[in-house]
Amino acid sequence: MAARTACRGAVRAPRGTVCMAMTGASLQGLRIVLVEPSHPGNIGAAARAMKVMGLRQLVLVNPRFFPDPEATALASGAEDILESAQVCADLDAALRGCHKVYGTSARDRRIHWPVCTAREAAGEILEALGTGDCALLFGRERTGLSNAELDRCQVLVHIPTVDEYHSLNLGQAVQVLAYELHLAVLALHPARIPQTVREKPAPVEEMEGFYGHLQQVLRRTGFLQPVREIRLMRRLRRLFDRAAPSQNEVNILRGMLTEMTRWATKVDKKDRDSF
Amino acid sequence: MAARTACRGAVRAPRGTVCMAMTGASLQGLRIVLVEPSHPGNIGAAARAMKVMGLRQLVLVNPRFFPDPEATALASGAEDILESAQVCADLDAALRGCHKVYGTSARDRRIHWPVCTAREAAGEILEALGTGDCALLFGRERTGLSNAELDRCQVLVHIPTVDEYHSLNLGQAVQVLAYELHLAVLALHPARIPQTVREKPAPVEEMEGFYGHLQQVLRRTGFLQPVREIRLMRRLRRLFDRAAPSQNEVNILRGMLTEMTRWATKVDKKDRDSF
Repeated sequence: MAARTACRGAVRAPRGTVCMAMTGASLQGLRIVLVEPSHPGNIGAAARAMKVMGLRQLVLVNPRFFPDPEATALASGAEDILESAQVCADLDAALRGCHKVYGTSARDRRIHWPVCTAREAAGEILEALGTGDCALLFGRERTGLSNAELDRCQVLVHIPTVDEYHSLNLGQAVQVLAYELHLAVLALHPARIPQTVREKPAPVEEMEGFYGHLQQVLRRTGFLQPVREIRLMRRLRRLFDRAAPSQNEVNILRGMLTEMTRWATKVDKKDRDSF
Repeated sequence: MAARTACRGAVRAPRGTVCMAMTGASLQGLRIVLVEPSHPGNIGAAARAMKVMGLRQLVLVNPRFFPDPEATALASGAEDILESAQVCADLDAALRGCHKVYGTSARDRRIHWPVCTAREAAGEILEALGTGDCALLFGRERTGLSNAELDRCQVLVHIPTVDEYHSLNLGQAVQVLAYELHLAVLALHPARIPQTVREKPAPVEEMEGFYGHLQQVLRRTGFLQPVREIRLMRRLRRLFDRAAPSQNEVNILRGMLTEMTRWATKVDKKDRDSF
């Protein structure tokens, strides 16, 4: 059944790419990631919401209580999802091997992140799963995802609510997304899934490596000044996320950064005081 | 999947088109009726699920415990829905004044009742509300609605699930329907759905300016060697074209190139032979 690749090395599901386009869409490669859930009941409710809609990979980042009898009680028939859940110490581990990360957000953040509705997201995620594993993040009950966590998401997913009250319970939010994903599977005819001619996008950890490298080089050049560093890096992330570079392309980009550094420092070596 | 006859009735227009001739369609006249709920937590969860999607009328038929602190705890901000909830001794009282009754059912009852999906139902209910009050029934946690109760429904509503496990929690079922109803309302007012704000992509001449600049810098660094220059630049063009940078983003990218050049050449100025 669902391979538990979440927190182990950069394991990629071999079934991810070609076969899906031929045999019909599936949600197998999708991780539902709950970030620091406080209430074990919500973990159980999420597991049940997932199972009923055909989702299997639950990943818990630093849960307050888990395992917990309340989670088991609320799972009510979906205990297998809880038993195979991956518990991770941090988000990096939870996202390892994923090539696309979606984050749910109640607040309106559309200035900095591309936002889509739950319904739009479902179709997109299903398509992205054709290329490799994906993650869908849900934040803490009270405070949601932090900005640093949202920075790891290429797309924000918004569940439309009334303006006056938009506090969806965590289990309910998982239910709505799981429901939309299941409907997207039902609606998709295999023939309508586009055959991918594009290279598979690089996994998140490779993108993080690139962003770290870029940031480091830009700091050294003086381009990133502390006051605008966060905003600029966020902007650059959005830009490169849209391009969804392949592993090959990430290698080229990093090669450029390395070459630039070498260029800038070859004189430097003679004159170490310069920097 | 077996053909699922959409809800009976003459009018079956796609949502968001002409069918909603009346303007300002609202969910005001819709009663969410929970029949003999056992767990007060589910009543609270249902209230929250309703409020977040703009539903207000909760009707409880013979609830096992109500009011109850657990219901209040789970309502979490939707206590007003609980306070105004109507408690009825039987279904007759709950349905009084309604002109159309919809019943949710997990089991496959389409032989005896017309069945529609949650999504189809949402559009229909919204339309029916234009004529008068309606009710949407949810059955007991374990056994759902009895046949006698289903007899009171003109249409059954089915939430699609996987075949192996279709046990939606009561609160989750209310959430899915409330969500679909809210989307049906939004479909009549598309402007309310948040749109991703994307800056306009930079014009081609700006992109050419960027590619020229990039090429020049990469040549100086030694990254572009004649033998692979054409292929590499082509590859970089494809990568950045996918991202479709805005004018602002092109400025940022060129600013980076300028800063890198300045960094690399500030020592160079002292030592012109280096290049």
